[in-house]
Amino acid sequence: MLCLGIDPGIGRVGFGYVNEEGSALSGLAFGCIDTDPDLSVQDRLNMIYDEIKNHINTIRPDVLAMERLFFGQNLTTAENVWQARGVILLLAAQERLPIVEPAPSQVKMAVCGYGKASKSQVQEMVKCILSLESVPKPDDAADALAIAIAGLSLWRIERLREMSK
Amino acid sequence: MLCLGIDPGIGRVGFGYVNEEGSALSGLAFGCIDTDPDLSVQDRLNMIYDEIKNHINTIRPDVLAMERLFFGQNLTTAENVWQARGVILLLAAQERLPIVEPAPSQVKMAVCGYGKASKSQVQEMVKCILSLESVPKPDDAADALAIAIAGLSLWRIERLREMSK
Repeated sequence: MLCLGIDPGIGRVGFGYVNEEGSALSGLAFGCIDTDPDLSVQDRLNMIYDEIKNHINTIRPDVLAMERLFFGQNLTTAENVWQARGVILLLAAQERLPIVEPAPSQVKMAVCGYGKASKSQVQEMVKCILSLESVPKPDDAADALAIAIAGLSLWRIERLREMSK
Repeated sequence: MLCLGIDPGIGRVGFGYVNEEGSALSGLAFGCIDTDPDLSVQDRLNMIYDEIKNHINTIRPDVLAMERLFFGQNLTTAENVWQARGVILLLAAQERLPIVEPAPSQVKMAVCGYGKASKSQVQEMVKCILSLESVPKPDDAADALAIAIAGLSLWRIERLREMSK
């Protein structure tokens, strides 16, 4: 079961692939899509769409995990992150790729066993769980791997819920 | 100059076409795209994308106008409206369609000459300006026509600004 984790944004989108075989998880690839700040918002969204579409068509993950967002105050940032989320959700629908959307606390719980873990605790645990030599960089790529780990766990829970209906 | 005005949303997207010939404006068509509330958010975004793409490819407007959004408190609604906005901005980029984004106060100013006009004042003025027999229904379609009127005005101002640089 291969999960593509996405940490959405307008300037930078983190991505990370985590494969699950039995109970073993491995991080296959991770990185970031950076968009040019001189481009218009619509052109940056278009670049994100093209790059992630290329990912999906080349790698064909089984499920896409994207963190659910909660914003306190900074609505200017929120606006563009949500617009980027819209484009990625559209892609999932177009490519008929199942999607799971763990909340931030679910990501921390799945990776650290504690819903209020710090960012650095999450990153250290990502390194451990995926047997990586160092903490993945940049942060958005590490976050995307954490989201993929949580996504695999949430996907299993949702399937079990459906089976027990 | 043909402008497609869009009032974005996840459950309903209002659209309205306004044509400008010299100083005369005419409303050519208006209506709404309604999405099924039983569908997932990503499938509703996909439906909005397909319908507006079909509009753009069939009618080929010269410019797309979509209202800029400001939300006070209801972030749950905001999330999905912004996600729908992201999909429409993506379409504009993919179709190389210029986009203008008037603020709500600019829409009121362009239509009523007063930035704090009420919703019903805006709708009455849309009826007058476009010589319609009655106020367009539903509200989202009337709003989309108002956004298209404001979009044509903002488009002209932005071109003049570019020329004077």
